[in-house]
Amino acid sequence: MSACLPSVYPLIQAPMAGAQDHRMAAAVCRAGGLGSLPAAMWTATQLAGEIEALRALTDAPFNVNFFTHEMPPPDEAVKARWQHRLQDYYRHWGVTADSAPVPLRRPFAAEQLEVLQQYRPAVVSFHFGLPQAGLMRAVKDTGAQVLASATTVAEAQWLADHGADVVIAQGSEAGGHRATFLGSDMATQTGLFALLPQVADAVPVPVVATGGIADERGIRAALALGASAVQLGTAYLLCHESLIGGVHRTALSAAAGAVAAETAISNVFSGKPARGLVNTLMRDLGCLNEDVAPFPYAAAATAALRSAAEAQGDSSFTPLWSGQNPHGCRAISAYDLTRDLCGCFEG
Amino acid sequence: MSACLPSVYPLIQAPMAGAQDHRMAAAVCRAGGLGSLPAAMWTATQLAGEIEALRALTDAPFNVNFFTHEMPPPDEAVKARWQHRLQDYYRHWGVTADSAPVPLRRPFAAEQLEVLQQYRPAVVSFHFGLPQAGLMRAVKDTGAQVLASATTVAEAQWLADHGADVVIAQGSEAGGHRATFLGSDMATQTGLFALLPQVADAVPVPVVATGGIADERGIRAALALGASAVQLGTAYLLCHESLIGGVHRTALSAAAGAVAAETAISNVFSGKPARGLVNTLMRDLGCLNEDVAPFPYAAAATAALRSAAEAQGDSSFTPLWSGQNPHGCRAISAYDLTRDLCGCFEG
Repeated sequence: MSACLPSVYPLIQAPMAGAQDHRMAAAVCRAGGLGSLPAAMWTATQLAGEIEALRALTDAPFNVNFFTHEMPPPDEAVKARWQHRLQDYYRHWGVTADSAPVPLRRPFAAEQLEVLQQYRPAVVSFHFGLPQAGLMRAVKDTGAQVLASATTVAEAQWLADHGADVVIAQGSEAGGHRATFLGSDMATQTGLFALLPQVADAVPVPVVATGGIADERGIRAALALGASAVQLGTAYLLCHESLIGGVHRTALSAAAGAVAAETAISNVFSGKPARGLVNTLMRDLGCLNEDVAPFPYAAAATAALRSAAEAQGDSSFTPLWSGQNPHGCRAISAYDLTRDLCGCFEG
Repeated sequence: MSACLPSVYPLIQAPMAGAQDHRMAAAVCRAGGLGSLPAAMWTATQLAGEIEALRALTDAPFNVNFFTHEMPPPDEAVKARWQHRLQDYYRHWGVTADSAPVPLRRPFAAEQLEVLQQYRPAVVSFHFGLPQAGLMRAVKDTGAQVLASATTVAEAQWLADHGADVVIAQGSEAGGHRATFLGSDMATQTGLFALLPQVADAVPVPVVATGGIADERGIRAALALGASAVQLGTAYLLCHESLIGGVHRTALSAAAGAVAAETAISNVFSGKPARGLVNTLMRDLGCLNEDVAPFPYAAAATAALRSAAEAQGDSSFTPLWSGQNPHGCRAISAYDLTRDLCGCFEG
């Protein structure tokens, strides 16, 4: 067992809502890593089903990940402004703003807690801070080890002070949503090389490194900088078990082989800043656009555009989540990828 | 001798124009590292004097660094727009735009080449690309090993293709000017964790890692990711030999001890994006401001403000250059710092 995680090896498959389910988690767990179930876009009932499906495939410990954002009250004026910003696209693609439903990302709440109390996963991780104190206490009472992500030293200290057992230092290289929850300034986001040793020095709990780790070199470097474990997401996105759609797979395959995969942090897909391969919507609107509806509402307005464009193999409106090093992506099973990566922990 | 550099250890003290001279370079050289002379703000005559002063202190090989930017023709309208943007500050501080002269950063040219031909330093490094082909050939004819900085894989390949003997991979964590010379998009700047292994895989020459390296952990991590050597700048800024002024020293000392030193990449000080501690001018104008006069002219317009403010201990207009990990800064001699850092290369 690894020193800071219940898995055989100190490697976490990053939870990736919309991109994977229990099949990827099970493959990683069977290979000795810590597989993750990404619960942010699932109902409590769906989550329970995923846990049961995972347990049918492996007895190994696993991680369940939740978002802990605030849900601002819906604001029709803000929604209208965002849809107005997109109206030329609606016209061009012949869709209306509301013509494609999209699962809303929901924060951790009482009904998710009930699922944890019933199934008692070994590890629970949170993104965007931690649940409010009562919920947090109840999660810890299930016996789960609690992990949470920090993008700054201040966030890492806040998490350790508020009960996180392990802090995940998320370097600016990471794909998907920035975990940022204290402040919102993307100009001061920190690369893993600088963030990791400062976090390791600042908190009394073990630190997991994530962001830009693509292979054994990255794992060794993270351990050298003070990490007790690593978390990889992008590297798993081309695996057989990945659920990403065709345009995402095509773009990521190109990036994995390309000299210069351009990614940027953008809020245009969900309302919160997240890193992905640069595409038309990001270029047209600017990566950080002020008209975007707040998280998690923004995604609904581009869902119809995304569907229409993807049907023609066009990735203009698809969030092409990727970290800054997609060169670790391989079209193999998550089991084989995990075994390969974990080789560096042997002897 | 280190494998890829003529110094005893594979560690370069980053050239820092305005912040150091031959004294720091000599201290680093005597400790076995590769000291650097930052020539960007010196005349050819000043450079020759610095080389002679350095040679009087040590026989060890050293590096001379030049900028290779283009000098756009002065544009009075652009200058007026930039000064107009600053007029409230001029009024408040009781200065005029032109009331403090400032040394202009000059690109490498024939007169600098003559100095190289006369003194034949072992290493010459370039920032913002390479000199044009004729000058570059002449530099190589002096026998110098040529290093140049890349912020992307594409830049690294361009440098290797155009004669650089060693490529410096500059992660987004690095303090001071981004070396960017192909494109100008700061949104796609890459953290060292992702940049370094991709550059190491892409070019046939040795790679030096820079950006966010503050201590032995960072050195070991850089070597694990494929670097043949490391370059540290920020770590040297509080050394006895550093020439930074009082407000910079004070801000950096605070950052070195602080939980969360906030740095950002900004163009407001010189016209080109460079990383420093966030201060008033960056906050007021936005880190990347479109009214800024082009490099290297922008600095002249804030020089009088900087002088007036610094006289009162106010860092509002001072470029507080710093990388994202100032925790390696120590108020010791550059000799001692270099010896400490190089300890990790021993056995």
